[in-house]
Order: sequence, then structure tokens, then C-alpha cells
Amino acid sequence: MAYELYYWPGIQGRGEFVRLALEEAGADYVDVARKPKGMDSLMELLEGEQIARPPFAPPFLKDGDALIGQTAAILFYLGPRLRLAPRDEAARLWVHQIQLTIADAVAEAHDVHHPISGGLYYEDQKPEALRVANAFREERIPKFLAWFEAILARNPKGDRHLVGARTTYADLSLFQLIDGLAYAFPRSMKTALKKAPLAAALHAAVAERPRIRAYLASDRRIPFNESGIFRHYPELDG
Amino acid sequence: MAYELYYWPGIQGRGEFVRLALEEAGADYVDVARKPKGMDSLMELLEGEQIARPPFAPPFLKDGDALIGQTAAILFYLGPRLRLAPRDEAARLWVHQIQLTIADAVAEAHDVHHPISGGLYYEDQKPEALRVANAFREERIPKFLAWFEAILARNPKGDRHLVGARTTYADLSLFQLIDGLAYAFPRSMKTALKKAPLAAALHAAVAERPRIRAYLASDRRIPFNESGIFRHYPELDG
Repeated sequence: MAYELYYWPGIQGRGEFVRLALEEAGADYVDVARKPKGMDSLMELLEGEQIARPPFAPPFLKDGDALIGQTAAILFYLGPRLRLAPRDEAARLWVHQIQLTIADAVAEAHDVHHPISGGLYYEDQKPEALRVANAFREERIPKFLAWFEAILARNPKGDRHLVGARTTYADLSLFQLIDGLAYAFPRSMKTALKKAPLAAALHAAVAERPRIRAYLASDRRIPFNESGIFRHYPELDG
Repeated sequence: MAYELYYWPGIQGRGEFVRLALEEAGADYVDVARKPKGMDSLMELLEGEQIARPPFAPPFLKDGDALIGQTAAILFYLGPRLRLAPRDEAARLWVHQIQLTIADAVAEAHDVHHPISGGLYYEDQKPEALRVANAFREERIPKFLAWFEAILARNPKGDRHLVGARTTYADLSLFQLIDGLAYAFPRSMKTALKKAPLAAALHAAVAERPRIRAYLASDRRIPFNESGIFRHYPELDG
């Protein structure tokens, strides 16, 4: 039975981290909310009072009876099933730990353009966003990239993957984080990636994986836009 | 061998979610950074170039050779070992999913007083904090509490626990989230908890568990203060 992914249509958002894993594995899945009446199905699972284990927010995944929310938890569940996680328990938790750190970076990237409230428009929090963007570019992007660079360099199986000798969902998620940051902050990232050559190489290598390359060229890949997590507002790029 | 918890001394912070689990289980553990020279050990694991799987930030846990960062990942690891997680795999992932949602709420609670940058003082981002606090109190606290209330009400094993019929680490973490929010926003929480009686009852019940009660009365429990995640600035409480 096909996996059912539920996420807001029209943006990559956090759903994209799940899509990339499903696409890399060649898995059979439905991107439900992009189908006719799909939003009704999404809202029913999100708000239906009979749902025993309701997700707090999209994305969530339905796999038969299993309904799982939280991007990192979805990937933890899918990892072994899609052969995108190591078999060893400790290594699997390490992949998950990396994913949680990527999730932290994603949340911070979002809050750059929405520092006051997700319920307000960017235009209503622009002065605050300008201040946050400065700190994010100067301190946070370099700090996150330095950590990814360090763990790539220290991987005993080689610096082409975050964990072990094969692609894991964390590699795909790091690709997406870098792709998004490079869209949102092209000037800053050009400089920042010079100090993180291993992370930059991983980003380029993931983009060239056959299934990912086909996916990125397809209309299943929603283009980056200014409704998503990674938004290109030139004034925030310094 | 004792578990080693590494977290910044002087604040409860994210380390507290791990402490509560260790205390409830009566586990043998060392709160390393609060011991003499403990900060040196913490910094060595955080920044030492020979560390194969370095955490991005505290808290992290050392259990023999295992070194695990990210609060939710630490609790996922400890859960079965401390008998604070269900045996069933799906239920264990559900506990984890709840924990990740608690982590999101914790991050938002922190960002209320630090909306611009963790590298600046509260006083340097106070006008922004006042705006964020308003949105957090009016929209986010009620939304999070409503979700916890719903999943408590829908637990087929009874509304006294988030998952199943026994205490899990998610119950302890929800206690801590509510405790922290009630410290930081006493006026708002008094109102908000009236609409979340099951969550309020869980908070009270956890505080009365014998080991938790003893812990809260001990000097191992660091008092809430204005260096931690949950800070009481009356002007942010509306």
C-alpha cells in the first residue's frame, strides 16, 4: 500500500524532507493534499475528534493504521523501511540526532522572516526580521555549517556521507537545508560554504543522485517561493 | 555504571527534561557540569576534535561508549532503559512524537524573551519580546494546551497519562513544560489551564509522585531563574 504524505500544498516546507526520502527510495507514495479534495483529508486527520493519535501539525505520514507526525519522527520511522538508515541501533540514533539538529536549523531559518509570530505577515515584522537575519547570517549559519563539516570529516567511513558509507535520510535533509539556505541567502551562503567544502560537496552529490535529479526536474518538486520556510528577501541577505 | 548528564550548570534548561526522567526512575547518574571541573569535561566532549559523534549543544548524555545529544533523542534512548516508555514500537514512537512537540513548545517559550538572538541580552530585544509574548500568550499557549488536552482525553487507557496506563517520560516533560510556563506567565497560565483541566491534573499528579516530590524539594532541583528557558518577566505576562 502506498505511503500517504500529508502536507500543505504549494510549499516545500517541512514536507520536503519526507518527500526527498520517499523519492530517493523510489517508494510508492501519494502527496495527498495536492490531489483533489486532498485538503479535506488532511484537515480530517488533523482536526477529527475521533483520531486517537492526532498530529500537532503537518507534515504527517499515514502508513496503513500508523499515523505519524513530526518530520524527524516520520524519517526515523521511514529510515529502515526505505533503506535510508543504518541497521546498527546506535548509528540509527546518531542519524536521528543529526536530523533533529537539522530541524533546529530549519526552525531558525523560518523564524528569520517570522520572528514575532507565524500569524502575521512578513511585512508586519520586517524591522525585527532585519535584526534577526543579521544574527542568523553572522553566527548561526556558520555554527551549523561548522558542525556538519566536522561530523563529515570525522565519519570513519569517509567524508562523503554524514553517517556510514551509504546515503541516509540525514544526507538528503542536509542537502535540502543547504539548498534552502542558498535560495534564501545566496550571498551569505556563497561565502559560508567556502568554509564548509565537505557540506558543499555533499549538497552537490545528492543533487546528482539519479532519482533525486529526476525528482528535482519534475513538477513534483514545488519551486522555492515566498510562502515557504526558505524565502528570498534580498534585504535579509546583508 | 552511572549515566553522565552534561548540561550548563545554574539553569534547569533542556537538561531538566532528562533529569526528571532519571530522578523518576531512581537511576544512578552524575550531573557532570555541576561537579568540580565538570565544565572542563563538558567542553571537551562538545569541542574536542577527537569526538567522533559530537553533540551540537548540551544537554548530552554519556552512557559508557554512547554519547547522545538532543533532548528528545536522549529520552528516546533512556525511555525503555528507565521503564518510562511503552514496549510496543508504535506507542514508543507516539511518546517520542509528543516529546518532539513539547520540544517545539519549549523552543518557542525560549524565543519569547530572545526573539532576535540568543547572543544578545533580553534587555537588548525587549520591544520585540513584548510583541512576541503577546502572540505566544494569545495563540500558542492555548493551541499547545488544547492539543495536550485532546490527546489526554483520547488515550484509550485513561486520561491520567499521555500514553498508555503508566507514566512515560512524556508525562514528566509535560509537567516540566507546564511548570515552566506557569513560572514565566503566571497570570496567563492561570486562565489557560482552566481550559485544560486534564493537563493541569497531570501536572499536579506528577509533582506528587514520591521520587519527583523528593527531587523537587532537594537541592538537585535548580530553582527557575532569569538565565533559563522559562523566565518570569512580568511585562511579558500581559
